Amino acid sequence: MAGRQPVSAESASSAEPAQTAQGSTGVWFVGARGSVATTAVAGCAAVTAGLHSPAGMVTETPPFADACLPALSSLVFGGHDIAHCPLPKRAEELAAAGVLPHGLAAAVRGELTAADSEIRPGGPQSGDTRSDEELIAAFTADLADFRTRRGLARVVVVNVSSTEPQPTPDAVRLPPSSLYAAAAVRAGCPYVNFTPSTGLRTAALTDAVAASGLPHAGRDGKTGQTLLRSVLAPMFVQRALSVRAWSGTNLLGGGDGASLADPAAAAAKNAGKERVLADTLGHTPEGEVHIDDVPALGDWKTAWDHIAFEGFLGSRMILQTIWQGCDSALAAPLVLDLARLVSRAHEAGLSGPLPELGFYFKDPDGGPAGLSEQFGQLLSFADRLREAK
Amino acid sequence: MAGRQPVSAESASSAEPAQTAQGSTGVWFVGARGSVATTAVAGCAAVTAGLHSPAGMVTETPPFADACLPALSSLVFGGHDIAHCPLPKRAEELAAAGVLPHGLAAAVRGELTAADSEIRPGGPQSGDTRSDEELIAAFTADLADFRTRRGLARVVVVNVSSTEPQPTPDAVRLPPSSLYAAAAVRAGCPYVNFTPSTGLRTAALTDAVAASGLPHAGRDGKTGQTLLRSVLAPMFVQRALSVRAWSGTNLLGGGDGASLADPAAAAAKNAGKERVLADTLGHTPEGEVHIDDVPALGDWKTAWDHIAFEGFLGSRMILQTIWQGCDSALAAPLVLDLARLVSRAHEAGLSGPLPELGFYFKDPDGGPAGLSEQFGQLLSFADRLREAK
Amino acid sequence: MAGRQPVSAESASSAEPAQTAQGSTGVWFVGARGSVATTAVAGCAAVTAGLHSPAGMVTETPPFADACLPALSSLVFGGHDIAHCPLPKRAEELAAAGVLPHGLAAAVRGELTAADSEIRPGGPQSGDTRSDEELIAAFTADLADFRTRRGLARVVVVNVSSTEPQPTPDAVRLPPSSLYAAAAVRAGCPYVNFTPSTGLRTAALTDAVAASGLPHAGRDGKTGQTLLRSVLAPMFVQRALSVRAWSGTNLLGGGDGASLADPAAAAAKNAGKERVLADTLGHTPEGEVHIDDVPALGDWKTAWDHIAFEGFLGSRMILQTIWQGCDSALAAPLVLDLARLVSRAHEAGLSGPLPELGFYFKDPDGGPAGLSEQFGQLLSFADRLREAK
Amino acid sequence: MAGRQPVSAESASSAEPAQTAQGSTGVWFVGARGSVATTAVAGCAAVTAGLHSPAGMVTETPPFADACLPALSSLVFGGHDIAHCPLPKRAEELAAAGVLPHGLAAAVRGELTAADSEIRPGGPQSGDTRSDEELIAAFTADLADFRTRRGLARVVVVNVSSTEPQPTPDAVRLPPSSLYAAAAVRAGCPYVNFTPSTGLRTAALTDAVAASGLPHAGRDGKTGQTLLRSVLAPMFVQRALSVRAWSGTNLLGGGDGASLADPAAAAAKNAGKERVLADTLGHTPEGEVHIDDVPALGDWKTAWDHIAFEGFLGSRMILQTIWQGCDSALAAPLVLDLARLVSRAHEAGLSGPLPELGFYFKDPDGGPAGLSEQFGQLLSFADRLREAK
Repeated sequence: MAGRQPVSAESASSAEPAQTAQGSTGVWFVGARGSVATTAVAGCAAVTAGLHSPAGMVTETPPFADACLPALSSLVFGGHDIAHCPLPKRAEELAAAGVLPHGLAAAVRGELTAADSEIRPGGPQSGDTRSDEELIAAFTADLADFRTRRGLARVVVVNVSSTEPQPTPDAVRLPPSSLYAAAAVRAGCPYVNFTPSTGLRTAALTDAVAASGLPHAGRDGKTGQTLLRSVLAPMFVQRALSVRAWSGTNLLGGGDGASLADPAAAAAKNAGKERVLADTLGHTPEGEVHIDDVPALGDWKTAWDHIAFEGFLGSRMILQTIWQGCDSALAAPLVLDLARLVSRAHEAGLSGPLPELGFYFKDPDGGPAGLSEQFGQLLSFADRLREAK
Repeated sequence: MAGRQPVSAESASSAEPAQTAQGSTGVWFVGARGSVATTAVAGCAAVTAGLHSPAGMVTETPPFADACLPALSSLVFGGHDIAHCPLPKRAEELAAAGVLPHGLAAAVRGELTAADSEIRPGGPQSGDTRSDEELIAAFTADLADFRTRRGLARVVVVNVSSTEPQPTPDAVRLPPSSLYAAAAVRAGCPYVNFTPSTGLRTAALTDAVAASGLPHAGRDGKTGQTLLRSVLAPMFVQRALSVRAWSGTNLLGGGDGASLADPAAAAAKNAGKERVLADTLGHTPEGEVHIDDVPALGDWKTAWDHIAFEGFLGSRMILQTIWQGCDSALAAPLVLDLARLVSRAHEAGLSGPLPELGFYFKDPDGGPAGLSEQFGQLLSFADRLREAK
Repeated sequence: MAGRQPVSAESASSAEPAQTAQGSTGVWFVGARGSVATTAVAGCAAVTAGLHSPAGMVTETPPFADACLPALSSLVFGGHDIAHCPLPKRAEELAAAGVLPHGLAAAVRGELTAADSEIRPGGPQSGDTRSDEELIAAFTADLADFRTRRGLARVVVVNVSSTEPQPTPDAVRLPPSSLYAAAAVRAGCPYVNFTPSTGLRTAALTDAVAASGLPHAGRDGKTGQTLLRSVLAPMFVQRALSVRAWSGTNLLGGGDGASLADPAAAAAKNAGKERVLADTLGHTPEGEVHIDDVPALGDWKTAWDHIAFEGFLGSRMILQTIWQGCDSALAAPLVLDLARLVSRAHEAGLSGPLPELGFYFKDPDGGPAGLSEQFGQLLSFADRLREAK
Repeated sequence: MAGRQPVSAESASSAEPAQTAQGSTGVWFVGARGSVATTAVAGCAAVTAGLHSPAGMVTETPPFADACLPALSSLVFGGHDIAHCPLPKRAEELAAAGVLPHGLAAAVRGELTAADSEIRPGGPQSGDTRSDEELIAAFTADLADFRTRRGLARVVVVNVSSTEPQPTPDAVRLPPSSLYAAAAVRAGCPYVNFTPSTGLRTAALTDAVAASGLPHAGRDGKTGQTLLRSVLAPMFVQRALSVRAWSGTNLLGGGDGASLADPAAAAAKNAGKERVLADTLGHTPEGEVHIDDVPALGDWKTAWDHIAFEGFLGSRMILQTIWQGCDSALAAPLVLDLARLVSRAHEAGLSGPLPELGFYFKDPDGGPAGLSEQFGQLLSFADRLREAK
């Protein structure tokens, strides 16, 4: 890392971006000005600078010490977004809302500015007349330019944009998440889909993905209610208790709250949530899941679950859980984990879906549904990365 | 099983108890007139008769099908108690309180009466002048008589009596639970301690237990709050989230509620609860555990847990859980599980503590603290039993 | 009361119904075979017989002692329903589901049978070709026949049927609840609408209601979540705390759960719930209300409310409530209260809407929105009834 | 108010305190460096400066507009404390803990410094050899000096210090809260006790209080769990629902959490909490109240209540509430309310206990127990103040 100049406020604001060592990993966020990406960029800098512990980052725990993951300090950030608010300003907004600690935005202003200078316009924007192919080509060029100009060994594309509506069967164009995913594949970039949007999971991309030999992971980060469900549902099964109904309500007010107020987007999200129960319990219990947009809550998410189960001699019992968390603070460390793991998987020559990363997802590419088994698989994956070239 | 006469109301009430086949297992409850024992006896009969599914009994799930466990229909019940209320009447009381289904007490009256006829006086009672040795001798004789008279291959002693206060260092006699445990050892009976009471865990019995070669398991059945903790605490660890405080309040009104209103008894129970957290988290978080006697709730237990944890960049988040269950309905199937497993372990020649049964206990004899790992060990134990002679 | 023969099982099952004293009050349930009506009939009999305390009945508390309300023992029940299950059987079903106490159905079988013999077919049924006018005429005749044959001083019609969908502006016929309400008016019967259905609140009935001079009360009984809201919302106002968002989810599985799974029916119900907040807070806070059909819960309703409020210096705070109640057990005593109060109001010559009964309703005919003020009005109403002729 | 110089940072830091107009009200906090006092001083300045709305202050709502209360801008703060941390630093600490908004401490630094300069040493400190009489004399002199030097019309003494242990019958000296209260009386200052400590409620002060003719109010501010109880308990009574058990657990970590970890202090606090239930319900239900010190929660308090109640036909139902609030933010506006109301009461010549202020207290000097009735009395009190000279 000797040749790497530190990404300081001065260097970042200079016209010529800092040269980074051969071997550095780029992290390209689709939705680069959103809460999750902003928190990830700011948090990576804060942890690197020793301002905060790496709480929430599984890849910073001992089992991953020798897995040859790229150092947090070596990650170079960029991305696409259709929003224009500069990252330092977004970080100030998040601090005002209690999502980021006060003072952090100022402390890592240089890194935020540096990442901001690598954000390119996303699309399609309202009124955009470009074809799917034109958009994919433009995004691909952005990725290639980032990699070349910054001298990166590889760039991991991570979708952290707002959930898009489920595509209708007669849609004439690809959903935006799939345009970005197609660009990632075309540019030779490993891909992570942290949202329930389509991304790579469309027949239109199946062949290209397979031919690319790229590793990829998804779908839909597991940060709250579903995380809980993935430990509670196995408990009921292991204890031979019969789950009759599992109902849930989510209240959230950030960008995700607004986009999920669209029933089509909520449907995409709920499909993942229900998958965990069906896969674990072996049946789909009664009950619904609601996602309500409550702007007053901002980025703070509340999830209430009500589980009606039956025990010995038909006795009826209830478990309720209330989870109050900050969505971005839950998601950002997992996003950094995934970028590092998938970057290393690419370096190690792995290709195709990575079911061993099911620990992170509501709707993974196979593998077990219970968190504990998923954690076991993640540890095995760390072993595999350690032993790879 | 050809020679076994069914335990019907008629045979049970006859002076001559039903002959049981060579190889039958006796289950001897310390606290045989309590809610848990009554529910276990009634429930075993109900499941055997096909009146209810075996929900809540792990040993009735497929992985245990070939583990050569004694059939539910072959279990013969007896026990010690200082209370006098006949089991059929206790079952009616439990039905009136909503603990047992209506009609069940009448449907299995024969089996309840049969078990009731095998209950012997416990001790020491108030004003009892017998020495520890005299009590142990009396209990041992009861066990031997039960085994011989009923022609049982073995008798598993299971402590399901009310939690007793933690013994003081200067106590002049053994706690009652240890007197019964000593009798089990002397009579050659495998032993299960489903309560937080001392039982075998006293220096006074160490040598006798070791010399006996008997298998035994304990301590303190994990039926509600601690069950939840054993899946939630690993989740926080696996996700690298830092638990700052874990507070809990239990409301319950049955006999357990009353006995745990004694601070010394509550201390015994809480020690087990806290062990799960300390073992899993690697530190003891802030927070207390309360056990309140609320007679209005009867056998229905409510447990509220409040967990304050810290994530990325010091963000503070909260998980709360509310568990509303029927204590006897949760405990009874586990007690039947344990009697069957330990009986089979005895048959298979296993001896000493069985850490593979940590799945069932708050304060097990070693083994992992997370429920998922404990379940894995239980499945391995089933394999081991299957392959034993 | 000298001439009144007791309503016993024998008299009820005889062809000739028991003669009741001049002055008795008939209670005519629209939805007479539903959970609420069945519980009201069984409960009235049980309280009269001294089998249970009158818990939940406000009219049995001291302030109502001298208000000249009809005695519980003098109420004569009948009603309309399109269902056919006899009341004694319905009561057994409710006991099996834990809604009624075990043994009650048998203890009051005579009274249930008597009420059952006074239930007439409702409508319009599927495939019914009768016009609105024909249905109203038929229902009116049923009411008049009941009053005459049983020698009743008056009959109060109480709508406790399932919530019907909100009528569309272009509906060609009156909603069923309005057909029954029209019949009540035509037959000279005071009317209570315990549901959110239209009932009297339609322009088509305005003139007839006004001309009739009958007292009436409604709409939508306040039994759980809204009851709570009517005491909590005033608290926030009185303490000058600003409510930002009030979100709620209701889980219920009885007939109401199924009918409210229809979004149009749920909309009718939610309008009343939101009215309480808007009237009290002076604005409509953010947040939604969900009503989920969860058959596994049966008649047991769970309501979770999440209230985000702001205090001094913009501090953000949260109150959450979880209400677990039995819908029929909450509604039935209020229904008996209302029948008695409106019967007495009729006797006392009161006419038109009775805003003093807002204590009972989500969507009352005027009056204050806070429960405490509503209770004050109810007590004043009792005074007024006491002083009437 | 013409002659009043604004309390700015410059004037406050000058050796010569700002002259205040004849007629200004002094507010003297016992516990002047604690969270509540610091929040009250900072908040009063922030609201005066228009930086924040007066949310949480009942005296800023329309019914109090003409009650001739002293203007917030005219309040002059001082107090006693045994701690030394300057108020501006305390305010910074509270902002770091999320209790005060970021930036507020800097914005009102002048007012904090001004108040800090009026804080005098409290007592008795550890090792203090002064007699009760010496301490009372010293405190009285501090009060008189404050009033004279600042030219105040009157000084209201408000106890917001940490809860002290309940005094034992054989205590040889007065509890500290009573020493301060005695000084208030001697100095002719109206007195408010916002804590459960003894204050004026000791036989030792009865005669002096009566002779003084001073108005006073207390005891134990109602900010969270008890506030809720004072609206929920009346609801159960009004609906004739029978409360069987009311259990509660409070988690809090600020100074109050630590002092209430002392069982004697908790006992003082709990007595007030239980009084609300007993007074409203007419009996003391089953159930306990716990107050746990959980430092990780800081000033954020969580209160869980579990209420088991019985309705029609003995049906058993449950209400649970979870209150998550910031203790100082809840208390500070009420403290300002009380200082203004009691100041005005003094001006208006009222004397003795003020039961009309029961709205604010857990353990008031008489009056109704339900919040709604208490609010009605408070409004009448405002009328009375309006009409006074």
